[in-house]
Amino acid sequence: MHAYRTHTCADLKKENVGDTVRLSGWVHRIRDHGGILFIDLRDHYGITQVLCDPDSPAFADVEKVRSEWCIRIDGTVKARDESLVNPKLPTGEIEVFVRELEVLGAAKELPLMVFGDQEYPEETRLRYRYLDLRREEMQRSMTLRSDVVASMRRRMWDKGFREYQTPIITASSPEGARDFLVPSRLHPGKFYALPQAPQQFKQLIMVSGYDKYFQIAPCFRDEDPRADRSPTDFYQLDLEMSFVTQQDVFDTVSPVIAGVFEEFGGGASVDDPASWPQIPYKEAALKYGTDKPDLRNPIEMQDVSEHFRGSGFAIFARLLEQDGTEIRAIPAPTGGSRKFCDRMNVFAQKEGLPGMGYIFWREANGEMEAAGPLAKNIGPERTEAIRQQLGLGVGDAAFFLGGKAASFQRVAGKARDVIGEELGLTEKNRFAFAWIVDFPIYEKDEETGAIDFEHNPFSMPQGGMEALEGDPLAVKGFQYDLACNGYELVSGAIRNHKPDVMLKAFELAGYGEDEVKKRFAGLYTAFQYGAPPHGGCAAGIDRIVMLLAGTSNIREVIMFPMNQRAEDLMMQAPSEPTSDQLMELSLRVIPQE
Amino acid sequence: MHAYRTHTCADLKKENVGDTVRLSGWVHRIRDHGGILFIDLRDHYGITQVLCDPDSPAFADVEKVRSEWCIRIDGTVKARDESLVNPKLPTGEIEVFVRELEVLGAAKELPLMVFGDQEYPEETRLRYRYLDLRREEMQRSMTLRSDVVASMRRRMWDKGFREYQTPIITASSPEGARDFLVPSRLHPGKFYALPQAPQQFKQLIMVSGYDKYFQIAPCFRDEDPRADRSPTDFYQLDLEMSFVTQQDVFDTVSPVIAGVFEEFGGGASVDDPASWPQIPYKEAALKYGTDKPDLRNPIEMQDVSEHFRGSGFAIFARLLEQDGTEIRAIPAPTGGSRKFCDRMNVFAQKEGLPGMGYIFWREANGEMEAAGPLAKNIGPERTEAIRQQLGLGVGDAAFFLGGKAASFQRVAGKARDVIGEELGLTEKNRFAFAWIVDFPIYEKDEETGAIDFEHNPFSMPQGGMEALEGDPLAVKGFQYDLACNGYELVSGAIRNHKPDVMLKAFELAGYGEDEVKKRFAGLYTAFQYGAPPHGGCAAGIDRIVMLLAGTSNIREVIMFPMNQRAEDLMMQAPSEPTSDQLMELSLRVIPQE
Repeated sequence: MHAYRTHTCADLKKENVGDTVRLSGWVHRIRDHGGILFIDLRDHYGITQVLCDPDSPAFADVEKVRSEWCIRIDGTVKARDESLVNPKLPTGEIEVFVRELEVLGAAKELPLMVFGDQEYPEETRLRYRYLDLRREEMQRSMTLRSDVVASMRRRMWDKGFREYQTPIITASSPEGARDFLVPSRLHPGKFYALPQAPQQFKQLIMVSGYDKYFQIAPCFRDEDPRADRSPTDFYQLDLEMSFVTQQDVFDTVSPVIAGVFEEFGGGASVDDPASWPQIPYKEAALKYGTDKPDLRNPIEMQDVSEHFRGSGFAIFARLLEQDGTEIRAIPAPTGGSRKFCDRMNVFAQKEGLPGMGYIFWREANGEMEAAGPLAKNIGPERTEAIRQQLGLGVGDAAFFLGGKAASFQRVAGKARDVIGEELGLTEKNRFAFAWIVDFPIYEKDEETGAIDFEHNPFSMPQGGMEALEGDPLAVKGFQYDLACNGYELVSGAIRNHKPDVMLKAFELAGYGEDEVKKRFAGLYTAFQYGAPPHGGCAAGIDRIVMLLAGTSNIREVIMFPMNQRAEDLMMQAPSEPTSDQLMELSLRVIPQE
Repeated sequence: MHAYRTHTCADLKKENVGDTVRLSGWVHRIRDHGGILFIDLRDHYGITQVLCDPDSPAFADVEKVRSEWCIRIDGTVKARDESLVNPKLPTGEIEVFVRELEVLGAAKELPLMVFGDQEYPEETRLRYRYLDLRREEMQRSMTLRSDVVASMRRRMWDKGFREYQTPIITASSPEGARDFLVPSRLHPGKFYALPQAPQQFKQLIMVSGYDKYFQIAPCFRDEDPRADRSPTDFYQLDLEMSFVTQQDVFDTVSPVIAGVFEEFGGGASVDDPASWPQIPYKEAALKYGTDKPDLRNPIEMQDVSEHFRGSGFAIFARLLEQDGTEIRAIPAPTGGSRKFCDRMNVFAQKEGLPGMGYIFWREANGEMEAAGPLAKNIGPERTEAIRQQLGLGVGDAAFFLGGKAASFQRVAGKARDVIGEELGLTEKNRFAFAWIVDFPIYEKDEETGAIDFEHNPFSMPQGGMEALEGDPLAVKGFQYDLACNGYELVSGAIRNHKPDVMLKAFELAGYGEDEVKKRFAGLYTAFQYGAPPHGGCAAGIDRIVMLLAGTSNIREVIMFPMNQRAEDLMMQAPSEPTSDQLMELSLRVIPQE
């Protein structure tokens, strides 16, 4: 007989009745029913009920065990009484009568119970992560993550991609976030950096002629803590292809992402990738107030400026006299009650706006009536024109925000989410995707007026060199994001592989030729030696798994995460180095005041 | 038509004759045959011959292109003349007549030719890695590496393992090599470390109840440079299992490794894993002079001390009077010539020994005769006894080394290799495996007499606590290596999961309870909460790919390796940090003298 087990704790069925078996696992729960001891014995695969009474030679040993002891038992499989069969448990038809017990690993008093749903402070959970990870929900999340990553790999292989590993100890990368540095012992005073992403390497792989690359890639950013972000590292499904257009990238990635959501989405509907809309960035901003819209929500905002220009609603009318302003309407079908409209108004105020004007339509004396102060101010004709533009009717409402888009758009987007949610318009149990395209390459710093890259400096401008010779702020990039249910899941671009276009693009953002050659030496030089057109994207694995697991805390989908202060309480990192270590690295720590 | 290609450069066949096609790729070679220009157009998948004559509107453009320009051509597929068909090329039946050409990426004068076999200094190859990587051999090695890793993953999944990612920014690990440190910005003066291996994490995953773990894991060691070792990081197939014995680990890993060698070994024979011997460490040392024997070589060394004790060969006879000495014979079938024996003697001298005594057997006047000075010194009876023990005959030889095993064993092992090689005894085209088992847990420092861990401090001693109460140097561990053709491919152990046995094991090596609790806090504490018995191993991926690719330079199987001074010449790492970066990290560089 095997030293530890003949079966896992999920294996035994009615067919095994009468067998002598050996099981190993953890004491999930122990109960004493009138002198008979019942243990739910748990391993990674399942739970088997084992029991013992004073007739068993093991009784005295069984009496001693406690929750979470790791034990091995030998015993005989017995059928459960018809009335005691547990149909929820794969092993629910049987139980095992214990004849021998060996304690493999005893446990001290537990700081955290594995059995049951008790909540614990996150610090406790992270300090005793090995107990926390035994809990059913964590086992589910961790195996989900592992299965999602495996599925991604299979899908990428099936599409003819190979995984190539890129360096983890490398040079500072220009993604713009803060690098983690690694002091070099052999080169005193010099430092390596951990890659913020394999961006340059994957482009070099294309220049090296490998055609299709992917990697489940660890990325490192020394970020200030946030709940939905790991303070140290995160994982991307990173990919790159040569000789492709933007549409080729979409056609490659969409089925991979859709496939993963179908496979692990727990039955939620997944939009057919062939029907995923491609929404220009500007249109997304207008309709949804964000470049990562939740399309399960059918509400689309509209520009209704013309109805307010010169109207009796003085605030909006005066606003519209300034350059670059507009009035935006959020239609709210079925939201036509004063109570609801007032609540939304308060929401906007909480978000820092003066409030949201609204109109709602109700029936009064068999006629449709537009209610709310705004309607009175602009009069029935304008009100009716708005209603018609928005396609609303009795029982519906509309909210209005005015000014420069930048001043209200974020709140408008949030209001759209809340309205969709509260009115039950946002579909549940669905993953709704859209590619957001045509991102501007540049943005203007409102204060300094300086032009800088809006997104990623490596994207190919639409229209190439010619476009760069016009108004920089009008230049769109072959640059795209994939939005799903309000999250950005994927981001990518067709790259700028032409050295002259690259220099020009950087010049517009204020970087001279020398600086480009210095900061991006590897890539810039490589582009001088026959660079192919190429593009790709990266999908955030942690976020995808979070969506699939239904959590908004990234630490629920990472096995051994740092806490929000970037500490590992279990392993006690970071810690003070020895003076020998510092000496070897030619470093001295500057004392803190 | 697609913007860049209708086919890859490996696709076109006779069936495509007459088709209008678009291809993209690199100018591999360009030739002018009497005014007709021939280009071998290359992409990741293959090579297609394209041609152009002055009748083509593209002729002037084609005339301008040079080696390694990335181009797109449109043209018509034509059948090659029967006499010009190239059966070695999948596209050898056709060629494409170019009607249009677009330069996608021009190339400057090349520092390194992609076409042809010219050798370049490694510094050039690494600085222009993207050109080097285009070469056929590098494309083969890189795709081999990728395919080997993919195959390992598939095989592990098929065995019910899941891949779990462990932290890369973490605490110092106690594997004994030097850590790479990462300064913490949020915790001034404190440092993280990059993991030397996920050893502690994988054990914690077992304590967390995940039963089977694997990971293609990056490992980081700040090592001094060596040709067969990356100075920064390397990859392991790392795995761990709960509730297993040593044999279970072998039964799991052996078929995975064998499968990979069968799949990628290029037809070389692979020993059936069921027949892989398990050789105790001591026996391996005696027979092969190493714990990573090359079993393609049939030579087994033997202890022949008794034949020399008190013999006329005074050097050996006197040596044997000292404690712990022995005389070891290396049989050399078919090595029976003075010339060969003298050459081997010189080899031993070059390796720092006084030399190797030898005897060889030849026919003289129809009789067998033992030749060489040694035979004369010890006389015919002892010589004959040695011959019989070693099973040698006419035409064979034997070499002899004496002293304490530690003083000659390494050279003896090397001599065995050289003899096997030179005499053609070592089989070619075979991968020969053996598990080396029963490693001692402890070793004694010859100078200080102190006892320390020989290998890995986390291994379970055979015999458990009881064994630790006897002579430490006699304690064997459940600790094992897999040797293949003279390399160590895998190393692993059944772990010591019992806190009391762990404390005792460390105590014998001079570590007090407080130090264990401090240095291995995570693991030691975890073992207090129901730890399962567990074990596993790690396989060196770089080394496996090196063996399969037939190279002894690790940089041939890494896409973007550091050079031997731990520099990345292409990306210019390491580099000097900005003073802002140092300030943020509260660090100062100590000026070098």
